[in-house]
Amino acid sequence: MTQLDLAKNKKISALMKKVAAKEAVSAEFIRSNIARGRIVIPANKKHFTLKNPCAVGKGLSTKVNANIGTSDAYSSISAELRKLEVCIKFKADAVMDLSTGGNIPLIRRKIIAKSPIPVGTVPIYEVMANAKKSKINIEDVQVKDMLDVLQQQADDGVDFFTIHAGVTKASLKTLTQNKRLTGIVSRGGALMAKWIKANKKENPFYEHFDKVLSILKKNDVTLSLGDGLRPGSIIDATDKAQLKELYILGKLSKRAQSFGVGVMIEGPGHIPLDQIKKNIDIQKRVCNEAPFYVLGPLVTDIGCGYDHITSAIGGALASSYGADFLCYVTPSEHLGLPDCEEVKEGIIATRIAAHAGDLVKNKPRAIKKDYQMSKFRKQRNWEKQISLSLDPEHAEKIYSKIKAGKSDVCSMCGEFCPMKLT
Amino acid sequence: MTQLDLAKNKKISALMKKVAAKEAVSAEFIRSNIARGRIVIPANKKHFTLKNPCAVGKGLSTKVNANIGTSDAYSSISAELRKLEVCIKFKADAVMDLSTGGNIPLIRRKIIAKSPIPVGTVPIYEVMANAKKSKINIEDVQVKDMLDVLQQQADDGVDFFTIHAGVTKASLKTLTQNKRLTGIVSRGGALMAKWIKANKKENPFYEHFDKVLSILKKNDVTLSLGDGLRPGSIIDATDKAQLKELYILGKLSKRAQSFGVGVMIEGPGHIPLDQIKKNIDIQKRVCNEAPFYVLGPLVTDIGCGYDHITSAIGGALASSYGADFLCYVTPSEHLGLPDCEEVKEGIIATRIAAHAGDLVKNKPRAIKKDYQMSKFRKQRNWEKQISLSLDPEHAEKIYSKIKAGKSDVCSMCGEFCPMKLT
Repeated sequence: MTQLDLAKNKKISALMKKVAAKEAVSAEFIRSNIARGRIVIPANKKHFTLKNPCAVGKGLSTKVNANIGTSDAYSSISAELRKLEVCIKFKADAVMDLSTGGNIPLIRRKIIAKSPIPVGTVPIYEVMANAKKSKINIEDVQVKDMLDVLQQQADDGVDFFTIHAGVTKASLKTLTQNKRLTGIVSRGGALMAKWIKANKKENPFYEHFDKVLSILKKNDVTLSLGDGLRPGSIIDATDKAQLKELYILGKLSKRAQSFGVGVMIEGPGHIPLDQIKKNIDIQKRVCNEAPFYVLGPLVTDIGCGYDHITSAIGGALASSYGADFLCYVTPSEHLGLPDCEEVKEGIIATRIAAHAGDLVKNKPRAIKKDYQMSKFRKQRNWEKQISLSLDPEHAEKIYSKIKAGKSDVCSMCGEFCPMKLT
Repeated sequence: MTQLDLAKNKKISALMKKVAAKEAVSAEFIRSNIARGRIVIPANKKHFTLKNPCAVGKGLSTKVNANIGTSDAYSSISAELRKLEVCIKFKADAVMDLSTGGNIPLIRRKIIAKSPIPVGTVPIYEVMANAKKSKINIEDVQVKDMLDVLQQQADDGVDFFTIHAGVTKASLKTLTQNKRLTGIVSRGGALMAKWIKANKKENPFYEHFDKVLSILKKNDVTLSLGDGLRPGSIIDATDKAQLKELYILGKLSKRAQSFGVGVMIEGPGHIPLDQIKKNIDIQKRVCNEAPFYVLGPLVTDIGCGYDHITSAIGGALASSYGADFLCYVTPSEHLGLPDCEEVKEGIIATRIAAHAGDLVKNKPRAIKKDYQMSKFRKQRNWEKQISLSLDPEHAEKIYSKIKAGKSDVCSMCGEFCPMKLT
């Protein structure tokens, strides 16, 4: 039985108790919301090293995911394992291995073996990388090969899969009818679109959705319904193709839930500030309040080099309106694979965004951290402020850069410190 | 005559034409909104090097201010001039010299002489630094000494003054009656409070407001009414003391406008996401739509080391709701004086926030930049994307870090680039 099946049968599992304790909510709160499809716990039965699981969804703190993984341009296993260490150190709640280059199964297994937090993947990447190695065109990949990769990854212990089942003949028709500036910007979405168009067949994950669900159900892999048609520019935001796909995802999410498979919905993308609430509201309505997992949103297209910031702005607002899970964006977004430093920057920016949102939707619990920090700030207790910060080494470095004499003030105000004056 | 006097007399000045051309609005739009107190142009008649003036207010792009300046812990003139160069390079619209240490008049004059953008100050800092040098207690400073510093700074060419005239007996009474976690966090506010309490007299800037206005009017210095009682923690946000001061500032702003002195209102501070709209709406109503100049807002207290991000989140939202001028916050906020790198980080984060807000309130004009960037992104024209970015050297460094072969894709997706697949 999956956690969803257990919850429907009014059973509270050890896992539900564990995540409830972390959130300071009751296990019954977790169970009842899992049963209603509003909370998921990405936890594959075979991910034996998952010591720090988390729940995602309604009434819980906003979670942060960090993407790592290789591409054909750079595929060092040790580099990815170092990035995983950064993810753990800076407290990402989950990590996705998005590798598309090198020995993908080996990288994945090593990451899972070393990860105490949930690990997600986008299985179609391995499918397509296999095809490329075998010199098979994308469009010639067989459905069986796709499902076999899903099976293998589920057996390896992957906790959640992104499946782009909403890129269908129908949503692609809407895309074609409504011109876009940046077209498809999702790798998985673009791969599915290419396959569908070349074969003039329906999306295999959509067509064989129950087979997909059977594979996920066996090890209790959580389904993350990918938004392959997410907008990649402000001008394309919240367009008909994006919404058409979302409606399809809404239907699929209900099918998955009735099948006993926990499901999240992925969301955009490039969205201006004044369309974020609308995006959250539509998702919650269409998907019956299934957890919403958003990439950003990036509130402008012009931030390359600093897209962890454009994304933190949108993520904070999305979280405040009810997004449950934020996928980080790093400073290297739109420009290249992130290195360890950029992974760190992305996680911290996204944790700030998640917490800023929690201060709205989960204020009584979230504000305790702010209260603590501000209390020590008023006391000019620098040691405590630094130890409570998101990156104490970094805060210490800034604080120590200019010595403010023997004083208990910082170098910004010196003796004119307002905390000291009043 | 000041720009405000000219505008009231239906005269369009050369300066109005210049800023109108920069914004792609009509000079009459600028004039009429200056006349109604909704737009200001901080431009001291004696700031002869002001080659790149800007207008701040309704219907215009959101402006960005960068704070530089010494403290008693660190007071190198050359360091401040290097920071000024960073401000100009990364396109801050204005700069404030907040020096409280070293030879303050000399630093200010050098900054003004080298600055093509408007320069602001907080004159009370120099007043108090002078007192400290003469071993006079803060409370023993005479009103004449305060006004003399204003006069000197106006004659030096300062374009806008922050004056904490709203920290009065009445607003301090409200502060005392309503307990706060972090009390007063504004240096100027704390200095005024200390003076008022010790002398049991009214705030001199409030008491002698017309004298202050006369000094400003002579050289057309813009008045920036400081929020000395801004909240310094989320738990103190939008409290009675903050609002009491704002109501006082609203009255003073009308007095300044009728006197012919252009005026902006300064705003908070630490404000959670769901109180930002309320803060903007109240300011606009109480101050008759005078330009709103906000510090952040910082949407959480826990971000030290990364407060340029907590501030960009709040600034973006504030800008989208109508804030006109964003004061940057750097990564060193709450920890120390910023260095050149931190000044850069602060400016870029704040420019992202300003633009994200402009995409809401000035969409047709603002979106052109996003359109250009996304068009080149779709074309995989890396050179153009990098040259359009906020920090081309930084973007180039990320892009070049991992070579994606001879390909026209970046190292993130490699050959699975969705832009190339579709």
